[in-house]
Amino acid sequence: MAVSAPGPPPDLRPADELDAADPLAGFRDEFVHADDEPGFVYLDGNSLGRLPRRAVALASEVVERQWGHRLIRSWNEGWFDLPIRLGDRLAGLVGAGPGEVVLAENTSVCLYKAAVAALGVRPDRTRILTDDLNFPSDVQVLRAAARAAGPEHEVVVVGSDGVHGPLDGLRAALDDRTALVSLSHVAYRSGWSWDLGDVTGMAHDAGALVLWDLSHSVGAVPIDLGAARADLAVGCTYKYLNGGPGSPAFLYVSADLPELTNPVAGWYGSDDPFDFDFNADRAAGATRFLTGTPPVLSAALVGPGLDLVLEAGMDRLRAKSVALTERFLVLADEYLVERGFEVRSPRDADRRGSHVALAHPEARAVGQALIHEESVVPDHRPPDLLRFGFAPLYIRFADVDEAVARMVRVVDSGGADRWREAAPVVP
Amino acid sequence: MAVSAPGPPPDLRPADELDAADPLAGFRDEFVHADDEPGFVYLDGNSLGRLPRRAVALASEVVERQWGHRLIRSWNEGWFDLPIRLGDRLAGLVGAGPGEVVLAENTSVCLYKAAVAALGVRPDRTRILTDDLNFPSDVQVLRAAARAAGPEHEVVVVGSDGVHGPLDGLRAALDDRTALVSLSHVAYRSGWSWDLGDVTGMAHDAGALVLWDLSHSVGAVPIDLGAARADLAVGCTYKYLNGGPGSPAFLYVSADLPELTNPVAGWYGSDDPFDFDFNADRAAGATRFLTGTPPVLSAALVGPGLDLVLEAGMDRLRAKSVALTERFLVLADEYLVERGFEVRSPRDADRRGSHVALAHPEARAVGQALIHEESVVPDHRPPDLLRFGFAPLYIRFADVDEAVARMVRVVDSGGADRWREAAPVVP
Repeated sequence: MAVSAPGPPPDLRPADELDAADPLAGFRDEFVHADDEPGFVYLDGNSLGRLPRRAVALASEVVERQWGHRLIRSWNEGWFDLPIRLGDRLAGLVGAGPGEVVLAENTSVCLYKAAVAALGVRPDRTRILTDDLNFPSDVQVLRAAARAAGPEHEVVVVGSDGVHGPLDGLRAALDDRTALVSLSHVAYRSGWSWDLGDVTGMAHDAGALVLWDLSHSVGAVPIDLGAARADLAVGCTYKYLNGGPGSPAFLYVSADLPELTNPVAGWYGSDDPFDFDFNADRAAGATRFLTGTPPVLSAALVGPGLDLVLEAGMDRLRAKSVALTERFLVLADEYLVERGFEVRSPRDADRRGSHVALAHPEARAVGQALIHEESVVPDHRPPDLLRFGFAPLYIRFADVDEAVARMVRVVDSGGADRWREAAPVVP
Repeated sequence: MAVSAPGPPPDLRPADELDAADPLAGFRDEFVHADDEPGFVYLDGNSLGRLPRRAVALASEVVERQWGHRLIRSWNEGWFDLPIRLGDRLAGLVGAGPGEVVLAENTSVCLYKAAVAALGVRPDRTRILTDDLNFPSDVQVLRAAARAAGPEHEVVVVGSDGVHGPLDGLRAALDDRTALVSLSHVAYRSGWSWDLGDVTGMAHDAGALVLWDLSHSVGAVPIDLGAARADLAVGCTYKYLNGGPGSPAFLYVSADLPELTNPVAGWYGSDDPFDFDFNADRAAGATRFLTGTPPVLSAALVGPGLDLVLEAGMDRLRAKSVALTERFLVLADEYLVERGFEVRSPRDADRRGSHVALAHPEARAVGQALIHEESVVPDHRPPDLLRFGFAPLYIRFADVDEAVARMVRVVDSGGADRWREAAPVVP
């Protein structure tokens, strides 16, 4: 490693050795890498995953042949059940069964449907529990679901230390008023990762249902919804699943809960949409939670990235992800803490997803300098965090070392001063 | 015209003369036409519009450069406000002002948000009025909205004759229990077209709000939501707007109704999503009705088709659309009625959209024969309708004549017998 920093290099195995021995190394070439940015280090795959090469060919097939040539006939030739077929492929990744997962709209709309459905089967309970590590849209949507359920319903947001999931606080807040517990499996800021089974069991013991948001864990952390006995889950397909910007979300509904009903029932979730009967019955399984016509182009492109994750296998992906984040933490402790950074992610790998958050008083400006001067892309979360995502399908151990070396260079050269006034990169 | 039918040809100006004089003729070449189906007559643009050539280039730009190369930086380079910018372009087409229209999810989800919002500002009224010409998903979603509002809420479906909007029935049903009137501007089956201003005024006189579904009219029929004083509207971008399969819907909220609130409030409709504050205020205008992250690929491709409609101009499009449907009706009367077809669309062009429905006892089988033997694509709506859509941007007068000639050939050669057992083409 070429870190031009004071102090001895940590006792780490050389990155090139690790990359040479990486059983997943070949997957990097399954993604598009721009020729004109050879030193580009993309550490934001936790926000928007890279473009799979297979998706380029598929986009052309869907646009030019399926839409342009086959036109309406394509509905019969694969479009119609796309949300169901891709849902079934996703089910295999998250420990769900056939018919328990569908693609639909976006995470927030899916969360709304799931939360309202859950409140509907706990009519004597008025509370939704969540925590302040949850994604802001989730808290907003849970509040919307509470409003839909009635004036006496409320969302209780349990406070945390900003890094670790507030297990004790949740336990203390759980009581017979709690209809639903809804949490992000992996927290978008700190990367905290809940134990799905433990928390689900705790909520069930209190008579509540559980609704997981898997957006920041699916494709990065092994998930077994069946083993956890989870009731409901939603998640995002454009982060570690590499489905493309704003690709549709997924919604899991346990087959054990046929009494849950879709509060936004539309034709696509009826048992025969093309019968055009407004009195139609609802479809079975998670399909009953569909509402309107899916965005076919954005939905179809979920397939290639999902397939890559399935081919790589979650065990190997998780092992590499942990090795990458552990290495980053060792290097951060060695070179970055003395430069004003503070680790804001769990130290216990079992409780951490695939990204690491570092706080810095000039986080935004340092992030801008990294992007514009060093071609390293993390993201900034206000007020003071930089997140570094290590997508195990395409991030190399050498990228970890490079990122840290360039962070050292940026800070030591006064990069924050140069970018204090620049516009932030979102999201 | 080469109709091999008995009886004299009707006294119509030759199609090739009309096509040669058509000021919109050049727009046909703005769309992709497959080389291997030279005689293909696509009369289903009212369900899925054709692929604009510009969309092919844009798809490649969005997938390969914006996603593949620019990655997360593209959110700052045009993705973030895509639903708002495209909404503003659409606003110009439907008589709305800047900030009154956004792209979001699909028509059904938008309808749900709009309907629940409307009920929220009429707390003392419990009824939603619609009619049985409305699209089945709309009726299902209105019922979902009624359920969300409370156990005493209900949807009243006014009966029609199956062709014409039941104006008298609506007027009779309107009373001080009516919170909302929601109708399809152009009915998906018969093509009936309501007078936006008259119906809106009638509902307002009764103290109700009005929510229009413009899916089957936008891009085919002039719309002035402002002049009509419409409260709310939704619509589809993949029919006459040629946005691509399942492209996002649009949602219009009158600037005169700031008291309406989005029942599915998520981060994308907050005033600063990238502040990541779950207590954020809502955005202004129709933006407050956004919820989650938009499907960027499907959303971006709405632009090219919308631009073509704006370039052609609604007055010219409407004039050609009326001429096309009038010609089809003349030919249908001359050649098709005696072959068992019955016109099920309004005869008055002012009350008709851009498609014509014909009933036939063997509609499904005749439709299959037209598609598979004659390369004419209408669509079938059970039990007995065939719909013929005349998208004025790319349908020629010669296509009208060809379609009728081939229908005659199919029926006279016993085509229904050959296709009675075939699977239907959806949707």
